Amino acid sequence: MKSLSKWSMLALGALSIGLATTSTAMSANSLEDVMKARGLTQKDVLAAAKTYVPTGGRDEFITFSSGGQSGQVIVYGVPSMRILKYIAVFTAEPWQGYGFDDESKAVMAQGNVNGKEITFGDTHHPALSETNGVYDGQYLFINDKNNPRLAVIDLSDFETKQIVVNPVLKSEHGGPFVTPNTDYVLQAAQYAAPLENGFVPLDQFNEKYRGAITYWKFDRKEGRIVPAESFSVEVPPYSQDLSDFGKGPSDGWSFTNSFCSERYVGGIESGRPPFEAGCSQKDTDFFHMINWKKAVELFHAGKAKKINGHAVISMDTAVKEGILFLVPEPKSPHGMDVSPDGKFMIVAGKLDSHTYVYSFEKMMGLIKNKDFAGKDAYGIPILDLKKSLHTQVQVGLGPLHTQYDSKPCTVYTSIYVDSQVTKWDYCEGKVLDKISIHYNIGHLMAMEGDSQTPQGKYLVSLNKLAIDRFNPVGPLHPQNHQLIDISGDKMELLYDMAIPLGEPHYAVAISADKLKPKIRYKSGWDSRTDKRSEYRTRPGKERIERDGNRVHVYATAIRSHFTPEIIEVEEGDVVSVHITNLERAEDQTHGFAISGTNVNLSLEPGKTASGTFTADKAGVFPYYCTEFCSALHLEMQGYLMVKPKGYKATAAKGAEGTIYAQGDYDKQFATNLATQDVINSVVGFITTHNYQDFPAVVALVEDATEQLNFAADTRKKAEDFAAKKDWQNATLWAGQWWQYQVKAADIGLRAKTYLEQNGAKKVK
Amino acid sequence: MKSLSKWSMLALGALSIGLATTSTAMSANSLEDVMKARGLTQKDVLAAAKTYVPTGGRDEFITFSSGGQSGQVIVYGVPSMRILKYIAVFTAEPWQGYGFDDESKAVMAQGNVNGKEITFGDTHHPALSETNGVYDGQYLFINDKNNPRLAVIDLSDFETKQIVVNPVLKSEHGGPFVTPNTDYVLQAAQYAAPLENGFVPLDQFNEKYRGAITYWKFDRKEGRIVPAESFSVEVPPYSQDLSDFGKGPSDGWSFTNSFCSERYVGGIESGRPPFEAGCSQKDTDFFHMINWKKAVELFHAGKAKKINGHAVISMDTAVKEGILFLVPEPKSPHGMDVSPDGKFMIVAGKLDSHTYVYSFEKMMGLIKNKDFAGKDAYGIPILDLKKSLHTQVQVGLGPLHTQYDSKPCTVYTSIYVDSQVTKWDYCEGKVLDKISIHYNIGHLMAMEGDSQTPQGKYLVSLNKLAIDRFNPVGPLHPQNHQLIDISGDKMELLYDMAIPLGEPHYAVAISADKLKPKIRYKSGWDSRTDKRSEYRTRPGKERIERDGNRVHVYATAIRSHFTPEIIEVEEGDVVSVHITNLERAEDQTHGFAISGTNVNLSLEPGKTASGTFTADKAGVFPYYCTEFCSALHLEMQGYLMVKPKGYKATAAKGAEGTIYAQGDYDKQFATNLATQDVINSVVGFITTHNYQDFPAVVALVEDATEQLNFAADTRKKAEDFAAKKDWQNATLWAGQWWQYQVKAADIGLRAKTYLEQNGAKKVK
Repeated sequence: MKSLSKWSMLALGALSIGLATTSTAMSANSLEDVMKARGLTQKDVLAAAKTYVPTGGRDEFITFSSGGQSGQVIVYGVPSMRILKYIAVFTAEPWQGYGFDDESKAVMAQGNVNGKEITFGDTHHPALSETNGVYDGQYLFINDKNNPRLAVIDLSDFETKQIVVNPVLKSEHGGPFVTPNTDYVLQAAQYAAPLENGFVPLDQFNEKYRGAITYWKFDRKEGRIVPAESFSVEVPPYSQDLSDFGKGPSDGWSFTNSFCSERYVGGIESGRPPFEAGCSQKDTDFFHMINWKKAVELFHAGKAKKINGHAVISMDTAVKEGILFLVPEPKSPHGMDVSPDGKFMIVAGKLDSHTYVYSFEKMMGLIKNKDFAGKDAYGIPILDLKKSLHTQVQVGLGPLHTQYDSKPCTVYTSIYVDSQVTKWDYCEGKVLDKISIHYNIGHLMAMEGDSQTPQGKYLVSLNKLAIDRFNPVGPLHPQNHQLIDISGDKMELLYDMAIPLGEPHYAVAISADKLKPKIRYKSGWDSRTDKRSEYRTRPGKERIERDGNRVHVYATAIRSHFTPEIIEVEEGDVVSVHITNLERAEDQTHGFAISGTNVNLSLEPGKTASGTFTADKAGVFPYYCTEFCSALHLEMQGYLMVKPKGYKATAAKGAEGTIYAQGDYDKQFATNLATQDVINSVVGFITTHNYQDFPAVVALVEDATEQLNFAADTRKKAEDFAAKKDWQNATLWAGQWWQYQVKAADIGLRAKTYLEQNGAKKVK
Repeated sequence: MKSLSKWSMLALGALSIGLATTSTAMSANSLEDVMKARGLTQKDVLAAAKTYVPTGGRDEFITFSSGGQSGQVIVYGVPSMRILKYIAVFTAEPWQGYGFDDESKAVMAQGNVNGKEITFGDTHHPALSETNGVYDGQYLFINDKNNPRLAVIDLSDFETKQIVVNPVLKSEHGGPFVTPNTDYVLQAAQYAAPLENGFVPLDQFNEKYRGAITYWKFDRKEGRIVPAESFSVEVPPYSQDLSDFGKGPSDGWSFTNSFCSERYVGGIESGRPPFEAGCSQKDTDFFHMINWKKAVELFHAGKAKKINGHAVISMDTAVKEGILFLVPEPKSPHGMDVSPDGKFMIVAGKLDSHTYVYSFEKMMGLIKNKDFAGKDAYGIPILDLKKSLHTQVQVGLGPLHTQYDSKPCTVYTSIYVDSQVTKWDYCEGKVLDKISIHYNIGHLMAMEGDSQTPQGKYLVSLNKLAIDRFNPVGPLHPQNHQLIDISGDKMELLYDMAIPLGEPHYAVAISADKLKPKIRYKSGWDSRTDKRSEYRTRPGKERIERDGNRVHVYATAIRSHFTPEIIEVEEGDVVSVHITNLERAEDQTHGFAISGTNVNLSLEPGKTASGTFTADKAGVFPYYCTEFCSALHLEMQGYLMVKPKGYKATAAKGAEGTIYAQGDYDKQFATNLATQDVINSVVGFITTHNYQDFPAVVALVEDATEQLNFAADTRKKAEDFAAKKDWQNATLWAGQWWQYQVKAADIGLRAKTYLEQNGAKKVK
């Protein structure tokens, strides 16, 4: 039998094996063998090569997709189609601590509706912030259709920072969309309802039900929406839908389409034809054209009335001031897409096989000349459809949404019923190509395809049905996002990606190099308010403060222990545990959960997060780190001791479970010296190579150095106890010294491997 | 300008274009061009070809991974590494309606701890049901570490059916594991605590704190755990960890390892060395060896005492009856892996560089001969380590978890600190190969690698750190699961997969062909109780029932309307909306959400789900379908009208928003006849081909036929109204008839495309 030696003795041997295997030759399998075995065609292999991203590689674009009724935002890479993150927005999600720590609960509480906690959202349309009409990678906005809310996500850390509730709408679909400099974020109604929020019977639908289009003011510097500087424009009960802002020549205008301009109220239960029949009977609906810059002036000039404390420019005022017009559009549309040059607006209606290309210039001419085709029931001028159009193109059955290519005049429209994407030329008005998708595409997305600088290259088809595309996983299917190569003349299907959670509607993709998120927070950071936390704790300053039955625990976390490890409170106490993660190393997140409570914190490096609960039951409640953070992760534990009311502690001291003697100390000491030799050899390798040319390794070296400093401090403790012949403490602190060595070795080995695999050169 | 003709006129033209494009030639790009442009090596292309699954293709294996503190189970395909589903288990998730419909709330409520609602879980170790030691694809079990709970997922629909709370534990890590016929499901404690759940000061740790190993009885026929037939075995306060059941010769025994058998209690805040030091000081911990078949007999013989109403076999009884033994194991282990033939148990400790291979035969010999090395402080016999071992193998720094290959004697062990996987031979005791992973692997998983029939082929490395592997997404990184080809002598890294939500710990993979989930429910099905719902509603039987302020709405959903479309209640009413999805077609899910409430239902075909809320505020609350179900999805809407208390309705009848005349009816009628021609041509194509050889198409044809029957019914309504010269109703019902035609055409086109793309042949 081999001896039970600690692994410090063996490290060098193991390392050398590790080194040898990194240079392993390629498998004997040839590509032809693999193709044959897996039934792949040449086309399949080409698609595989176009989408595969090797280990450590980077995707070219990052997609932000709504999660639908999951209430989240989904982040994935293109072309690998690997999902990188689900960002919690309207729904609690414990892995991120969202809705489980006090800081994020405060964000969620901003989204309460009439004081009621709303625990989910139906996210539909993400929008990226723009500077001069170009995506700048700073912020993402996302709506909730079910309750009319809007959230702000900061792309410096991919966290939700703010939720605002629309004060006049009951549901909301057509937004967010941003102005070219993200001064305003647009949100349009969906199902009409009384703006005042009270009960109004449906027999007053035409008179009292309304839509509205809200312009939320966004403060770029603070990264927050400013409700007091925001306003809405009242519009008819036409079921407003998607929108877009003008650009270039059309900057200053916004466009919002609608369905059910029939103003039909269903009631199939009482023998009336259902909504779907009455809402799709006319050949055309209307899009709303609003001069939002002038609307801002009217708002500032006090021409808005207040409804529920929110400024609303009435239809009458909007008509009188000449800022609101209607334009006929194909019925039941779902898409309003302004061309990159701002000259054209493309609309498709699901029940008309054409896309309609509107000329902004023509429409402005009509408005200027007051050349209107009539007025609607609310007195809003209607432009003539024929006179507004640049062209119409027959694209297929059930056209829906259009995205722009980087190539001039080239666009792609999703075709729901035909299950196709049509590529066409909106200048010449002709179809260029079609491709079948699987199945029933809703929105589609080209890279930066709704900005002023579309990037072309890839298109993603957001299909609403997957049916047989993937291995079956029960009656509820994943969604299917299909990646299409649009770099050539013909579209080529590259990849079927399953969406495993949520039902995305709209998505936006940005060049990956525009995103530069941070990897750690300033120490003691409240990431939700973007300020130092008032509960931050520095090492050595951990403490428990009590005021009556209110207890605050100021705690820290570091590999691999919390301080404190024992928290004593009394039954009935209201306890807040505030933990600061002291780590600085990338990806060195800790978690914190206490049995019997609903506290789960996600503590990224530098973050301070807080969990509050009532200790309503006497007992023993283990807590532990929920992120596998280190070799001693399972031992990163503690006990919340909830004493019964009036409990009197005795002076009893528990017996140690294991007693250590000088021999144990000496053995541990020898192990540590041997381990130090291993570390020294790793350090030697690193410092004799040009590691400073590799920022990732520099960060690792800093982290390892920190661990070695801890080791040195702990060694001193051990030696002090040994000098006093307190072998129990001496042995255990020597063990702790070794733990810090293990962490340093872990990091050092990672750095060494990195240098080996990335062609570091020996120096001197 | 082109005419605004409805798209029925154009359908055939569009179809022919669609056909043409499906035969598009391959892009001009050559593989060499793509490799050069994307910087891919030959090895990369080979890996791409080994993992790429073309559209409509199937993965060979399906993985079930824990989601860690997200409280979910993650389902993904191997080798494509596409995530197919997140199954909600301990955390509410609205896309699935989980925690948002009454039926799933009842499942979650089973998991209340001491009456307190627990809103998240920390899932660690999934286990698949087995028949004769072989995965059978029927059930999946998953634990919650933070609160000691266990959930049952039925793989016939991938839904969580049951949650049980462990009555004696406070936290739980080492489970679930199943007996070879899934009679029992094992759950082992983690952090020791008093089994009785009360407060016991830490100075009585050795005397009063305990672990336990629970054997939950599973009723295969009902698919539910039976708490009354379940029991636990009391064990020392040793921080029990992972477990496994014996197989073949070792069937009847279970094995559970432990850490911190030092029984150390930390307290760094008061100057004591932290848990991590005191819990890793000894060179060895103990694994527990329990004769569970004999324990079942003892339980049935009444030899268990009751703690918190649950049967517990005390340590004293277990020792006296000879069912509990301890075996030294490498310190801080995390993995107890019984060989497929049941002869060996492999254990690795993170702080020992060896794996230890135990011989069941040797251990049984020692037990039989009462050849013990001693007893622990609780009187439990300890087997001699040396005499129990088959061999020890030096595998690297930080070995953790071992999985079995299909090749004899071949295993893989994850090496945390070295960030490697070591392939080795446990019969001969030698290392065969090593591969570097990125970074810090926790568990690893081979295909069916912990069953009696390992499948080999692929290995997945569940890495705990991703660091620089993916595009950055902020301080909280995704996890990284790396796919490794183990079919050859040398391991080959194939793919880096990001886990975008949750932190998986353990995973299990099953041959995909063993899973045969259903695609629809029997009509009116409560999927959580697996019974017909008492609230199911047949078409035509929709109604609203009131008893005092308790209102039940019996509703249905079908493309594209709910019945009823208007729900009137009074302020203060407690309302339940029960919706039956009448669809039979695969993937034809509807959703249902009401603004201002927290109701969101996911209604897969056949399902009945219920949302209950208090109508606490008078007003108008739109509801709608949250799944993009059809071209008229946005129009699948309704209004919840909450009348103020005492509100008196007037006899007022609202004016119609749009008035239709005979001309409108005639136009719609003509459109419908033209649309019918299109449908007939599609039907003609289908019926002149061998569609009956394609089950997917047969299902589509059934669905289309149903839609056409609706169309015929509705046509009759329209014609009846026309006969009465009620042009308003006649036109709208004719519109509805057309809507059904559109749905039939949608399905028909999908069937036609399927036949074209799958080589259907013309018949007759």
